[in-house]
Amino acid sequence: MEAISRQAQEQLAVLRRGTAEIVPEEELLKKIEASLRSGRPLRVKLGLDPTAPDIHLGHTVVLNKLRQFQDLGHEVHLIIGDFTGRIGDPSGKSETRKQLSEAEVMANARTYEAQVFKVLDRSKTHIYFNSEWLAPLRFADVIKLAATFTVARMMEREDFAKRLREGIPISVHEFFYPLMQGYDSVELRADVELGGTDQKFNLLVGRSLQREYGQEPQVAMMMPILEGTDGVQKMSKSLGNYIGVNEDPFEMYGKTMSIADHLITRYLELATRVPMEEISALATGMAEGRINPRDAKMRLARELVTLYHGPEAAERAEERFKLVFSQRTLPEDIPEYRVAAGEEWLPRLLVEAGLCSSTSEGRRLVAQGAVRVDGERVDDSEAALSLRDGMVVQVGRRKFVRLRVQ
Amino acid sequence: MEAISRQAQEQLAVLRRGTAEIVPEEELLKKIEASLRSGRPLRVKLGLDPTAPDIHLGHTVVLNKLRQFQDLGHEVHLIIGDFTGRIGDPSGKSETRKQLSEAEVMANARTYEAQVFKVLDRSKTHIYFNSEWLAPLRFADVIKLAATFTVARMMEREDFAKRLREGIPISVHEFFYPLMQGYDSVELRADVELGGTDQKFNLLVGRSLQREYGQEPQVAMMMPILEGTDGVQKMSKSLGNYIGVNEDPFEMYGKTMSIADHLITRYLELATRVPMEEISALATGMAEGRINPRDAKMRLARELVTLYHGPEAAERAEERFKLVFSQRTLPEDIPEYRVAAGEEWLPRLLVEAGLCSSTSEGRRLVAQGAVRVDGERVDDSEAALSLRDGMVVQVGRRKFVRLRVQ
Repeated sequence: MEAISRQAQEQLAVLRRGTAEIVPEEELLKKIEASLRSGRPLRVKLGLDPTAPDIHLGHTVVLNKLRQFQDLGHEVHLIIGDFTGRIGDPSGKSETRKQLSEAEVMANARTYEAQVFKVLDRSKTHIYFNSEWLAPLRFADVIKLAATFTVARMMEREDFAKRLREGIPISVHEFFYPLMQGYDSVELRADVELGGTDQKFNLLVGRSLQREYGQEPQVAMMMPILEGTDGVQKMSKSLGNYIGVNEDPFEMYGKTMSIADHLITRYLELATRVPMEEISALATGMAEGRINPRDAKMRLARELVTLYHGPEAAERAEERFKLVFSQRTLPEDIPEYRVAAGEEWLPRLLVEAGLCSSTSEGRRLVAQGAVRVDGERVDDSEAALSLRDGMVVQVGRRKFVRLRVQ
Repeated sequence: MEAISRQAQEQLAVLRRGTAEIVPEEELLKKIEASLRSGRPLRVKLGLDPTAPDIHLGHTVVLNKLRQFQDLGHEVHLIIGDFTGRIGDPSGKSETRKQLSEAEVMANARTYEAQVFKVLDRSKTHIYFNSEWLAPLRFADVIKLAATFTVARMMEREDFAKRLREGIPISVHEFFYPLMQGYDSVELRADVELGGTDQKFNLLVGRSLQREYGQEPQVAMMMPILEGTDGVQKMSKSLGNYIGVNEDPFEMYGKTMSIADHLITRYLELATRVPMEEISALATGMAEGRINPRDAKMRLARELVTLYHGPEAAERAEERFKLVFSQRTLPEDIPEYRVAAGEEWLPRLLVEAGLCSSTSEGRRLVAQGAVRVDGERVDDSEAALSLRDGMVVQVGRRKFVRLRVQ
């Protein structure tokens, strides 16, 4: 008894890492104790929207938490909300809720799977499509579902309240999105549901519905919303401030090195598995000026690349990064050179960008190994270079241009 | 063309009788013209609630209007809302919306049929149960249905707005009652829907939904709510101020004679087929003191009994009424005599009620034809009388008692 109670407290401590809110925490503790006693793993649910299959670090905050549950012996149940995706927004008012074909939903689902298993343990993960139980519901079942919830409570949802205040129409069917998500919890008999803090209302609907259907209500566990590389806005693909888990190692490393210093420990806590003690030590070190934030950031970047591409790729990315941006001490204000998209013969580019006076000089410089593109030496003087926005072309130690592709 | 336009105007004039509101009237006129041109009758819809199968004059206001449509060549489509009745109120909050079994719904439906055909023309009436098309709807269909309507518009419904103001919970599923009724109109492709003025919101939902589903919207036609015999409250069985179409002729006649004078022309207009010219003449006559309201009321009572029991029954009811209440000039304060329910030998009743001194005197009085019960002479001195509350027993011209059965 004593041992179980201690083990449960230990699990809870792990699960509390980075978590914004657990509603209610004492129920989670009880559920963990019951699981330890019975040997039955907790059923931890996450709902996924099949319209946006590119996973970035923002999504991994929740995935990492799921992985912690798995590491503690629990099961993860992923629900792909294909039913919602397939019906789309029948009011036609929302462009983001466009209707998807079954093929698109399946393709997105496969893309998801490929990405989530970079974080999750496949052997402890179950994947469902919620159309399995939602599509066959009849009108009478829907009425029963809707009867469990009042209009006043629905209007407490922040975005509904805001739209009502501002006179932006809410269609009656929109009340069903939280109800569907809640019904998924009933169908799964979820013990815990995870989501961002913006999902709190929906997660609590799941609790209510389970109670209405005679089940022990799930615990709602909200994770913070991760800021993007700009340090201000929520990380999102459409804002361009994201780091995708599928990005190549050098890109991932470089983007990480571009984040603001105040995000370092937050990213470490929410997006990596670095132990909290180590993160605290880094934070203290930086606060006291003993640790250079750039070094802490490199630790973070290496960690992230290791997670998604393995340690060797991380090492290579770091080497390359050091070469370009550290050892070479890239100046603060590299002149920009505007160029049309496409390919260009490197010696001609050097002339046009003002880095040398003739193509023959350019050819010689390349042959001498004096020319680098994004920190990597180019040896072939006949090479056609694919021009990329932001690409840095360097001659010798002091001449640089950054390409601006138009 | 000229002829059709004139005919349509004539139909509209008939249909306007007693009607509270037609939304919009010009569309009704167009629909009638189109019907006259094509020879296709209009499809006129009425929804019936299967929980209250006793039809009274209040219900006949709408039924009479449907009958006028039939007399003008149109079709009536009655929808028995069995789907709503069968699912009941799943929130369990409303006692009036209790769940009915299929057998109860069918029994109520048969009771309805028996009564509505006292007003409607059976050959031009179609009856449906809306579970036929509502029960098979799937979640995706329901979402599509709900998407046609905004929350703000739903909250314009008077009772919803009132409950929200007063903090009385509204369950989300309640939004579906108007949507179901509206969907019935889509399914039927109704041209016109009838209802009381309290149904205006629901009837307009039908218009909206038909438009959403690509149909020409129905015209909403609202009839006034008939006051009960008390002249104040809405006629309703639970308030006891009703005249049922299944009541016996004498009861119906008597109840009609008890209504307040100001209701006479209203009942004539809304609950009978007496021509409007005649009603106007009666109204003018009463206003100028040329017509005794009692005579106008007798005209109304005769008309109602004729409608539901035929002219002979009406004549007999009137004769009997006159005998008891008019010719015999029943005194204002008839003494009451309390008696147990059951049957009683008439001469003994006369003794016990103090109308004669012995059963042999009683027997003789009956044989002489001096004894009347509710105005009708009783000849058989051995008769066993079924005692009824309010029954008036009379000996000669001046001795009366009114039985009070306990």
